[in-house]
Amino acid sequence: MSDPAKIAFLGLGAMGFGMATNLLHTFPHTTGFDVWAPTLSRFTAAGGHTAQTPVEAVKGAKYVVFMVTSAAQILSCLFDESTGTSGGKGISAATALEKGAIVILCSTTPPDHAGIVRQKLDAVGRDDVAVIDAPVSGGTVRAADGTLSIFAAGAEADVRAARPVLEAMAGSNLWVIEGGLGAGTNVKIVHQVLAGIHVVVSCEAMGFAARLGLNTQWAFEELQKGEGNSWMFGNRTPHMLVDDKKIYSALNNFVKDIGIITSGGRAAGLPLFLSSAAEQVFVTGFSAGYGAKDDAEVVKIFLPTDQQNLVLEQTSLATTSSKDVSKLELVAKLMAAVHLVAAIEATTLGAKVGLQPQQLFDICVGAAGTSFMYKDRIPQLLSGKWTSKKTVDEVIAELKVSIEAAQQLKYPLPLSGTTLQLLQLASLRGLGKEPDVAVSRIWDGGDGPLFLGSRV
Amino acid sequence: MSDPAKIAFLGLGAMGFGMATNLLHTFPHTTGFDVWAPTLSRFTAAGGHTAQTPVEAVKGAKYVVFMVTSAAQILSCLFDESTGTSGGKGISAATALEKGAIVILCSTTPPDHAGIVRQKLDAVGRDDVAVIDAPVSGGTVRAADGTLSIFAAGAEADVRAARPVLEAMAGSNLWVIEGGLGAGTNVKIVHQVLAGIHVVVSCEAMGFAARLGLNTQWAFEELQKGEGNSWMFGNRTPHMLVDDKKIYSALNNFVKDIGIITSGGRAAGLPLFLSSAAEQVFVTGFSAGYGAKDDAEVVKIFLPTDQQNLVLEQTSLATTSSKDVSKLELVAKLMAAVHLVAAIEATTLGAKVGLQPQQLFDICVGAAGTSFMYKDRIPQLLSGKWTSKKTVDEVIAELKVSIEAAQQLKYPLPLSGTTLQLLQLASLRGLGKEPDVAVSRIWDGGDGPLFLGSRV
Repeated sequence: MSDPAKIAFLGLGAMGFGMATNLLHTFPHTTGFDVWAPTLSRFTAAGGHTAQTPVEAVKGAKYVVFMVTSAAQILSCLFDESTGTSGGKGISAATALEKGAIVILCSTTPPDHAGIVRQKLDAVGRDDVAVIDAPVSGGTVRAADGTLSIFAAGAEADVRAARPVLEAMAGSNLWVIEGGLGAGTNVKIVHQVLAGIHVVVSCEAMGFAARLGLNTQWAFEELQKGEGNSWMFGNRTPHMLVDDKKIYSALNNFVKDIGIITSGGRAAGLPLFLSSAAEQVFVTGFSAGYGAKDDAEVVKIFLPTDQQNLVLEQTSLATTSSKDVSKLELVAKLMAAVHLVAAIEATTLGAKVGLQPQQLFDICVGAAGTSFMYKDRIPQLLSGKWTSKKTVDEVIAELKVSIEAAQQLKYPLPLSGTTLQLLQLASLRGLGKEPDVAVSRIWDGGDGPLFLGSRV
Repeated sequence: MSDPAKIAFLGLGAMGFGMATNLLHTFPHTTGFDVWAPTLSRFTAAGGHTAQTPVEAVKGAKYVVFMVTSAAQILSCLFDESTGTSGGKGISAATALEKGAIVILCSTTPPDHAGIVRQKLDAVGRDDVAVIDAPVSGGTVRAADGTLSIFAAGAEADVRAARPVLEAMAGSNLWVIEGGLGAGTNVKIVHQVLAGIHVVVSCEAMGFAARLGLNTQWAFEELQKGEGNSWMFGNRTPHMLVDDKKIYSALNNFVKDIGIITSGGRAAGLPLFLSSAAEQVFVTGFSAGYGAKDDAEVVKIFLPTDQQNLVLEQTSLATTSSKDVSKLELVAKLMAAVHLVAAIEATTLGAKVGLQPQQLFDICVGAAGTSFMYKDRIPQLLSGKWTSKKTVDEVIAELKVSIEAAQQLKYPLPLSGTTLQLLQLASLRGLGKEPDVAVSRIWDGGDGPLFLGSRV
C-alpha cells in the first residue's frame, strides 16, 4: 500500500545523495537506491533506508524520485525486469509501483523523455501513475540544503500532488512551468545554454588575461564589476585561479547537457552557433582527458602546454599599470559581446520551444545562468522598450580590437570569434542598428524574431 | 649599375631556398640573403652568390625577390638602415636599390602590404622602383622545380618587366591578376580559405573515422572517391596515417595565413564562419605545441590523449563489413557538407574583395585549394545554371546523422558543427531550396548574393 510518508529515491550521486539526505528531514522513510554499494552504506549512516533493486525501492512508496545520470538509466530502472536479487525475474519497477504513485523525474534528459516515460507506463497499464518532469539546478550545496531550483511540469493535478516532495527539495525555488511534460526540461535546457556558454567564455577570457600577462586575480576582480560578468564567472574563476582540483561540476555533465541542447536545436531546426562552439570546446576537453574533472579545467585547452597555470608571476595589485588597464579592457569587451549574444541565443531557443519568455527570464536571472548582460538586456528586448547604448558596428569595432590582440598572441577565441561572425552577419544583412535587436533578428524566419517586444 | 641578369633573393627558407636555387638555372648571378648563416653556405654550395646584408644583396640587381616570413620582415629588409657589417650606418636597401629595380613580393602578407611598400618607396624618393605583388602557392617541390603557382598583380608595365623572373619561378603557372597591388594577395588569401579549411576538415574527418573504429587506410582510399575529397585530403592524409613527422607545411604557416584571412574578413565586414572556426583549431594546435610541426598534426587535438595514432589495430581490408560502410558514410557526408560551404565562403570573399569570380575559380580549381565540391558546384553557381541534387533540408538531415554519431562518441566537430548551423540558418530564413544557393544567400546584404549567376 502506498505510504504518503514514503519516498523511493533512485540515484545517489553527488547531487542525489544531498537531495535524498535532505528529504529525510521531512520524509524519514526515504529509501535510497544506487548501483554503487558504498553510497548505500553512506546513506544508511545518514539515517536513510536502502534497497538493492529499483523494484524493492519503490515498494510502498507514494513518491518515486529519479536523480540518475541519464534517460537510459531511468528507463532501465523502471522497465527492465529482474533488476536485482530480490526483484525476481519478470517483475519491473513499473509493475511494482504502488497504485497512484507519483514519479518525479529530476535528471536532465532530452525534453521528450518525460513523455516517453508517460507513454511506456501507459503501455504497461500504469495510467494510474503520475509523471512529473522536474529537472533541477543549483549544485550540490543547494541540493543538500533543500533549496534547489526545480522546474516542474506535467498535468496540473499531478504537479499539485507532487508538491510536498518538490517543496521539500526546492523550498521557495520551485517553479511550475506551463506546457506539460517536457516544458520543465526545456527551461533547464535554456538555462544550460547560458550556463554552458558562460563557463566556456570564463575560461576563454581568463586564459586570454593570462596570455596578456595580466595579474589574473586582479583581472578577475575587475572583470566582475563590468558588463562581462556572470554567475558562472564568479563561481568558477576563483578555483580556476588556485587550480584546487575541486569539482564543482564535472566536465562530463556539460558534455551531456550541451549535447541535449544542440540535439534540441537540430530537432527544432534552430541554429545555435554559440552553443555548438561551446560544445566543441567541452568535447575537446573530454578528448584531452578532463571528462571527470571540473568543467573549468577546459581553460587548459586555451593555454600553451608550458603555461597551464593561470597564476603567473604576478605583479602586485598596487603596481597595476595603465597598460594593464587597457589590456583588461580587451578581455572585458569580448566577455560582454559573448554574453550578449548568449542571452539572445538562449532566449530565442526558449521562445522556439514554446516557453513563456517572461517566466523563463524570471527563472534564469535568479539562477546560475544569469549574467550582467542577460539581466540588463533581455527585459528591454521583451518589453520592446530599450535605450540604445552602442550600435552593432560599435560593438563589432570593440570586439575586433580584442580579437586582433588575441591573433597577435596566437590565442584561440572560439566563442568570441563566433560572436564576431554573428555580429558581422547582423550588420551585413542590415538587421538593425541596436546590437540586441539586430542579433535577435538573425533567427527571423519571416515572421519576425522569436521573442521581441512589439516595437520591433 | 643594374644588371638584367642579376637577382637579389631575400629569404632562403624551405620555400625560398628552392626558388632561389631554381632561379640559378636562368639567372646564374642570383645573390641570396638570409639571417640564418647555414642556409647561406648551402646556397653557395648550390652555386649561388650570397650577401651578408640586404643592402649588399640588392647592389647591381635588376630584380629583388622577397620570400621572407612576414610583411614586417620585408619592411625591415627594405627600410631599416645599417642592417649589417658592410651596409654602413645610414644606408637602407631602399636607398641602395638600383635605378628602375623591380621588387617582387612573394611572401604571403596582408593585402594592403604591397601598397604600403609602394608608398614607403615613394616617400623615400624611389618611384623609379617597380613593385609587384606576387604571392606563391605550391609547396617546396614545385618551388625547386620552377612550377609554383604565382598570382602577380601591379601596374601592367611593371608586371611585364618582371615576367622573366616570374616565369622562371612559375613556368606556365603564372597568373596575372587584374586590380593592382594587393589583388594577387587577395587571390592567395581566397585560395588559403579553401586550403586551410580543407586541412582542418581532413583532420576532423580522419579523427572521426578512427574514433568510429574504421580501418583508416581503407577509409582514406574510399573517401577520396567521393564528394568529400579535396587536394589537401589526398596530400596530407597519407602522412597523417603513417605519422612520419614529415613537414609538408608547418602549422605556423596556416596560423599566419588564416590570421590574414580573418583579418581580411573583419576589414571587409564579411562574416567568415568556417575560416574563423578553422583558425581556432589551428591556434589551439599552436597552443598544444604543434606550431613548428606539420599542419596535419592538428588531427591530434581531435583524438583522445590515449589514442593519438590514427592507425588502430586495423582489420584487414578484405573483411570490411557493411557496418563499416555505413560508418564511412557518416564521415563522407560531413566532409561533403563542409567542402560545399567552404567553396561558397571562399568564393564570396573573393567577390567581396573585387576578384573576377571566373578567373579566381580557374586558378583555385587547379591548385592545392581544390576539392570535388569546389569543382562541381562553383561553375554552376557562377553560370546560374545548376541541377538540383539535394535540397538544403536533405543535406541538413544527412549531416545531422553524422553529428549525432559524433556526439555519442563525444567527438568534436568544429567545422561540421559550424556548417550545420549555417545550413540551418539558410533553411530557417528560407533562403532557397538548393543548398548551394541558400548558403550563398547568407551573405546577401540586400543587393543579392555576392557572386551568383543571373538566375538567382
